[in-house]
Amino acid sequence: MRTISIIQLGFGGVGRALAKQIVSLREWHKTRYNVRLRYIALCDSDGAIVDTKGLPDEVILEAIDRKKSGEKLKQMPFGYAQSDVSAVVDVAGTDETVVVDVSASKETLPALLLAARLGYGIVTANKKPLTDDLESYRKLKSAEFLRYESTVGSGLPVIATLHRLLRSGDKVSQIEGALSGTLGYLMTQIQQGVPFSAAVREAYTLGYTEPDPRDDLGGVDVARKALILARDLGYPLSMSDIALEPLYPKHLDELSIPDFLEAIQASDGMFEERVREARSRGQVLRFAASITPEGVSVGLQSVPESSPLGRLQGNDNLVGFYTSYYDQTPLVIQGRGAGVDATASGVLADIMEF
Amino acid sequence: MRTISIIQLGFGGVGRALAKQIVSLREWHKTRYNVRLRYIALCDSDGAIVDTKGLPDEVILEAIDRKKSGEKLKQMPFGYAQSDVSAVVDVAGTDETVVVDVSASKETLPALLLAARLGYGIVTANKKPLTDDLESYRKLKSAEFLRYESTVGSGLPVIATLHRLLRSGDKVSQIEGALSGTLGYLMTQIQQGVPFSAAVREAYTLGYTEPDPRDDLGGVDVARKALILARDLGYPLSMSDIALEPLYPKHLDELSIPDFLEAIQASDGMFEERVREARSRGQVLRFAASITPEGVSVGLQSVPESSPLGRLQGNDNLVGFYTSYYDQTPLVIQGRGAGVDATASGVLADIMEF
Repeated sequence: MRTISIIQLGFGGVGRALAKQIVSLREWHKTRYNVRLRYIALCDSDGAIVDTKGLPDEVILEAIDRKKSGEKLKQMPFGYAQSDVSAVVDVAGTDETVVVDVSASKETLPALLLAARLGYGIVTANKKPLTDDLESYRKLKSAEFLRYESTVGSGLPVIATLHRLLRSGDKVSQIEGALSGTLGYLMTQIQQGVPFSAAVREAYTLGYTEPDPRDDLGGVDVARKALILARDLGYPLSMSDIALEPLYPKHLDELSIPDFLEAIQASDGMFEERVREARSRGQVLRFAASITPEGVSVGLQSVPESSPLGRLQGNDNLVGFYTSYYDQTPLVIQGRGAGVDATASGVLADIMEF
Repeated sequence: MRTISIIQLGFGGVGRALAKQIVSLREWHKTRYNVRLRYIALCDSDGAIVDTKGLPDEVILEAIDRKKSGEKLKQMPFGYAQSDVSAVVDVAGTDETVVVDVSASKETLPALLLAARLGYGIVTANKKPLTDDLESYRKLKSAEFLRYESTVGSGLPVIATLHRLLRSGDKVSQIEGALSGTLGYLMTQIQQGVPFSAAVREAYTLGYTEPDPRDDLGGVDVARKALILARDLGYPLSMSDIALEPLYPKHLDELSIPDFLEAIQASDGMFEERVREARSRGQVLRFAASITPEGVSVGLQSVPESSPLGRLQGNDNLVGFYTSYYDQTPLVIQGRGAGVDATASGVLADIMEF
């Protein structure tokens, strides 16, 4: 039986879902794959619980409960305070160690770079380390084992598919994608005649958006996903190279959330007009990412109703790859692109490839 | 640099496309992946060209041309006659060897089982070894490295996706798929009012069908794909367990092709009626495979127009996975599911995972 040791950075929703899955799948992984996954460290932003011989399952399950009710890891059994996750990576690892980043933090990059230098595996669901400067990106990519499926489309096999295409030498000419379930939902609503501002307000009230809906409407999260795909294609781009068209004017960043929700009523007419204009050409409006050798754009896009993107309804994500072998119709991956459990399961599938 | 040695069984369309891709991608695989792929044996049904130090590229390219114009491998430079491919597997391999089955033959199973015993990797695009008796299947599955992406949906990442879901411990409750481009095309035609027999005749004339169109219409090929997916889910099934509804009555097997094309006019009314019946419920008719814990069925199926299968047009393949995490809408893989180049590229991506 093979043992893989895990150092996990991040213990929010995805991190806890992952820990729960790993504990509950012990038998499955042992009998079907002859693999044992053990946690040697679980870290949050200012502490960790650590046991280099493997944290007991009871301790992990207790930590999940206590973290959910607001406690910090450093206060728990096996806990200790630390200001630098790199320290944990440094002391705790062995050869068969994977550092798993399920945080949403900018601060994990040094720990991941250290993991790469030490020859550990790296799995990340966190987009930030992969969308930082190009030099850091290249260092991460030089790691012997690096997987990041859940950075794009949550658990959907978008990255795995792209890597298969690249390994097979197929030439990818374009990737287009609807990479935000929330924005997909909004687009479906305004297509059905709901005013933009009303659709946003409803999505906000139902909890479909981020706590601040501007974090969705600004499109930065989609732009990060597009950059990860573009860099995989070999384009030496950075965030500032992406032509990003947010769904609200920059000056509304100053407002409170209630004021913001009021202010965007001014855009309702523009959205209605763009939907009408698209429809007059047999097209529909989508918030999409497009990645071509000419550049990367993220924003409103009018697409044929009969295209894969045009047929998309609701909050599913969709990625289409146009290549030498998929030239008439794209290779399409579609499905739910959010949710802590689906995201965690994508991370787990990555770990199991180690 | 890592060297992977290849013993290839089969040198038809897919086999030649694969050999051509491997030769032309030398630089790409070397610079991007630090891997060198070399052929130590290329086999057709009664011979092989063999060089345990690696066949030179010129020899491979020449063999592609000469095979295309009807010559047998045993007549070529480096060629020798053999009646049993196992003999080649036995003498030619090293530890870093992959046996690649791109034939459509029933006869390769012993060679693959030998490869498994010797610890070689196995990659197959050939469905037959994986749909033979359960004991052989289990022996193949016990191989240390086994990939078979191109057996289902050609180069589409159907198997890779299923294996990711399984490794992540997600519970797959149903797989549904349109797994024949030819039958998908026919279904689209009859949906548009073309009589069944006319659609078949046209597809036959245009070369969209197998030389004998009954090889498509019988559904056995789709049933094999369904069985491969079902066995991956852990169901101990065989071909005889699949509820297969062919698109023509069994007694027409006796006829010549022209007589067959005449005779199926008798079914036109039935197809028209089933299309009408489906439409009256807001549904469309598909030739689909459905895999559930209750069993596997392959045949005509009426599905909601708004479902992924219902929205499918033309000759794309589509596979939908319903799981614990993809329960509202399925995880969908869609795209062209045929063509020698796409099939070969799926095989190549598999080899590159070795």
